[in-house]
Amino acid sequence: MLEELKKQVFEANMELPKRGLVTFTWGNVSGIDRESGLFVIKPSGVSYETMKPEDMVVVDLDGKVVEGNYKPSVDMPTHLELYKAWPEIGGVVHTHSPWATSWAQAERAIPAYGTTHADYFYGEIPCCRVMTAEEVAGEPGHYEIEQGKVIIETFRGKNPMYVPGCVCAHHGPFTWGKDAAEAVHNAVVLEEVAKMAVRTELIDRNSVPAPQYMLDKHFLRKHGKNAYYGQIKKG
Amino acid sequence: MLEELKKQVFEANMELPKRGLVTFTWGNVSGIDRESGLFVIKPSGVSYETMKPEDMVVVDLDGKVVEGNYKPSVDMPTHLELYKAWPEIGGVVHTHSPWATSWAQAERAIPAYGTTHADYFYGEIPCCRVMTAEEVAGEPGHYEIEQGKVIIETFRGKNPMYVPGCVCAHHGPFTWGKDAAEAVHNAVVLEEVAKMAVRTELIDRNSVPAPQYMLDKHFLRKHGKNAYYGQIKKG
Amino acid sequence: MLEELKKQVFEANMELPKRGLVTFTWGNVSGIDRESGLFVIKPSGVSYETMKPEDMVVVDLDGKVVEGNYKPSVDMPTHLELYKAWPEIGGVVHTHSPWATSWAQAERAIPAYGTTHADYFYGEIPCCRVMTAEEVAGEPGHYEIEQGKVIIETFRGKNPMYVPGCVCAHHGPFTWGKDAAEAVHNAVVLEEVAKMAVRTELIDRNSVPAPQYMLDKHFLRKHGKNAYYGQIKKG
Amino acid sequence: MLEELKKQVFEANMELPKRGLVTFTWGNVSGIDRESGLFVIKPSGVSYETMKPEDMVVVDLDGKVVEGNYKPSVDMPTHLELYKAWPEIGGVVHTHSPWATSWAQAERAIPAYGTTHADYFYGEIPCCRVMTAEEVAGEPGHYEIEQGKVIIETFRGKNPMYVPGCVCAHHGPFTWGKDAAEAVHNAVVLEEVAKMAVRTELIDRNSVPAPQYMLDKHFLRKHGKNAYYGQIKKG
Repeated sequence: MLEELKKQVFEANMELPKRGLVTFTWGNVSGIDRESGLFVIKPSGVSYETMKPEDMVVVDLDGKVVEGNYKPSVDMPTHLELYKAWPEIGGVVHTHSPWATSWAQAERAIPAYGTTHADYFYGEIPCCRVMTAEEVAGEPGHYEIEQGKVIIETFRGKNPMYVPGCVCAHHGPFTWGKDAAEAVHNAVVLEEVAKMAVRTELIDRNSVPAPQYMLDKHFLRKHGKNAYYGQIKKG
Repeated sequence: MLEELKKQVFEANMELPKRGLVTFTWGNVSGIDRESGLFVIKPSGVSYETMKPEDMVVVDLDGKVVEGNYKPSVDMPTHLELYKAWPEIGGVVHTHSPWATSWAQAERAIPAYGTTHADYFYGEIPCCRVMTAEEVAGEPGHYEIEQGKVIIETFRGKNPMYVPGCVCAHHGPFTWGKDAAEAVHNAVVLEEVAKMAVRTELIDRNSVPAPQYMLDKHFLRKHGKNAYYGQIKKG
Repeated sequence: MLEELKKQVFEANMELPKRGLVTFTWGNVSGIDRESGLFVIKPSGVSYETMKPEDMVVVDLDGKVVEGNYKPSVDMPTHLELYKAWPEIGGVVHTHSPWATSWAQAERAIPAYGTTHADYFYGEIPCCRVMTAEEVAGEPGHYEIEQGKVIIETFRGKNPMYVPGCVCAHHGPFTWGKDAAEAVHNAVVLEEVAKMAVRTELIDRNSVPAPQYMLDKHFLRKHGKNAYYGQIKKG
Repeated sequence: MLEELKKQVFEANMELPKRGLVTFTWGNVSGIDRESGLFVIKPSGVSYETMKPEDMVVVDLDGKVVEGNYKPSVDMPTHLELYKAWPEIGGVVHTHSPWATSWAQAERAIPAYGTTHADYFYGEIPCCRVMTAEEVAGEPGHYEIEQGKVIIETFRGKNPMYVPGCVCAHHGPFTWGKDAAEAVHNAVVLEEVAKMAVRTELIDRNSVPAPQYMLDKHFLRKHGKNAYYGQIKKG
């Protein structure tokens, strides 16, 4: 079932340790097949060193496991909420990558200090609000569903494909994209941008974001209908 | 004698350089066999590049070497004190891992800024007080015994399995766990958490810990009787 | 066409990921053949893992592609401006290397704090001014041409071979040299110097540059007509 | 001539890139044969990737090359001064390792914040004063001789084997030891200690050194006549 998607999601998961984004099993990637309404996600607490494509777990949009020898990642309900809210996304990533997580722990959005940021994220990368005691408490899965809802609340009125990620207060980053591979790509960018933003402020505590017209230029040079970066004309 | 335990302790020691926690020989891991009351520890000052399982030293709970071609790690008496005080632990690790050691050098406990911390350590990771001149002076082994006693004093009235590590003022971290492998796992987490806590304060000098209900949720999701993280239900 | 130069430029490009200066495809190197007035540059958005010497693109000094299966790097017009303005340079590099980019994002020149800096850069490494909305707007290529012009403006009245690099505000570093390999060498030095300058200020916020006579000594020991560093006497 | 020493010095030089202490050719190691009064040093500006034991240069205590196909390292006269002043040392290392160099650039001694420091350096690691214009000027070799003299001045009345290294203002670190290998070992420790000291001050800007009795205990546990660390009793 969904063998090709399982392979893609497996490979996207394996990118995380390769890119230095995870310690132990602290990360998970999923990818969705919109036609069947099923998504594929990493199993919970399984080591990257032994994980295989067939260990991926298939889940439906009610959160029910429809195939798999393992329990899905504990963060599965968060992925699910995002897939339900945003039909334009095809992949979701959660990590505890250290630079992005540090912004989450400090409860701060990451300012758009330069073009590296603007090439992928159109404006600051938001920090979702601290969750309430009620949201966090309750049965297994409740907290993880609420986590998803808080992310969606953060992007109300915004295009999630224009800012394909956020940091969740005192927790860590989530990113997304048109598929699992792009979501991982955005997770790598977020970590790099989070690192440079810390250093920018070390160099000058009063640093200011890049001017809006530079952010416009760089994001639209890669993503707008008149994009001219890379080999394939997107417009 | 204790061949299986020697192999486990050897492998746990070899994880330290692999995980970037030690420079040269600055670390040691031990594991105990509670039935025989014997523990196995790394030899002193032996290079990780040439070390073999049979080089591990077997010591009894009076601190006497009962088997081994080498002297045990100079920190052996500290391990011994912890094993005597806390019957629930099965492995102990000491390193000079750079981020954790920096907290030790600054004489500060590591605040619980996020869920990465809370997944393994239930509350702040304490910094043991500066040792007195009397504790530090004296015959070989006296200082190392006192080091153990100061750690135990720090955890008086607390469950050492709920906060499986600390940093010793102006020295470095100790961690523990149900066996040598888990103690090393906790040493890796401590270093990662120590790193992110420094950066969290760089991002906002007035950062606050995660709310208690988030710390509860994350620690108990993995460790309580209703744990639901990973593949094996612990409850 | 220009097979030897393509090979050199390809190898210079491959140094970037090897030296840790680029993530994904965030960098590009070119080299010029002054006799024919043609330069060779990396294609746009092509992965370092699959790139081959024959993928390099040949461009003339009007910016026209004269050979190549791919579009040239989007930053090609910036390289072009530098080649036209400075006949003494033979190679150009652009990266988003994280330490140098952080200085760019903070809009600060990198002070000459020590001899590592002075061995390659004779005085501070300038930060080019923020570009105007007019410079940034317009047709594909306009912004990139203006980027080059702003760099040239920054070096007006200065010898670009004495300070072979700069950081562009809210963007990242450009470096150059007598050929593509030397330009990459200078990119590595710039990143190292940028890193140490941040740390120097962490150690003492009021750090001062090295005295001018030390900067003179070190730069001229390696680059002046009485150079005596290395195996070949340059004088 | 001195084949065994050449091999040792070559291997000690090769440790520098392996341990992450040098970029390009920014480092040099020498070792002396006290009997013949000859020392062996890395050639100037030769790449670590192609360097061989037979490329090492043999120099006498007047600074004259007595064997070698290459010019010796430009810093050779500094090594020479140290060998002449301190008969107890057998090896010297100079690098631009980034953390130690940052302390040099900030003109600050590295405080003895913990036992990692104290295990190798008995007290703070001094920063040599800024050299004068007269010391820096002049013929090739003059500056490098004066660099050595400033280091010796810094250690006047002190045992250089008790604090086997320093940082030279706006330049970088020098370390030494009983032979080339120990000098490199001390260079690695200095870099690690320099890194942790920066972070200690980030965690608490008002951090204080470890108490003297802890510094005594740790240094003497490894180096005094009653040393009891490692496998060989030194007393």
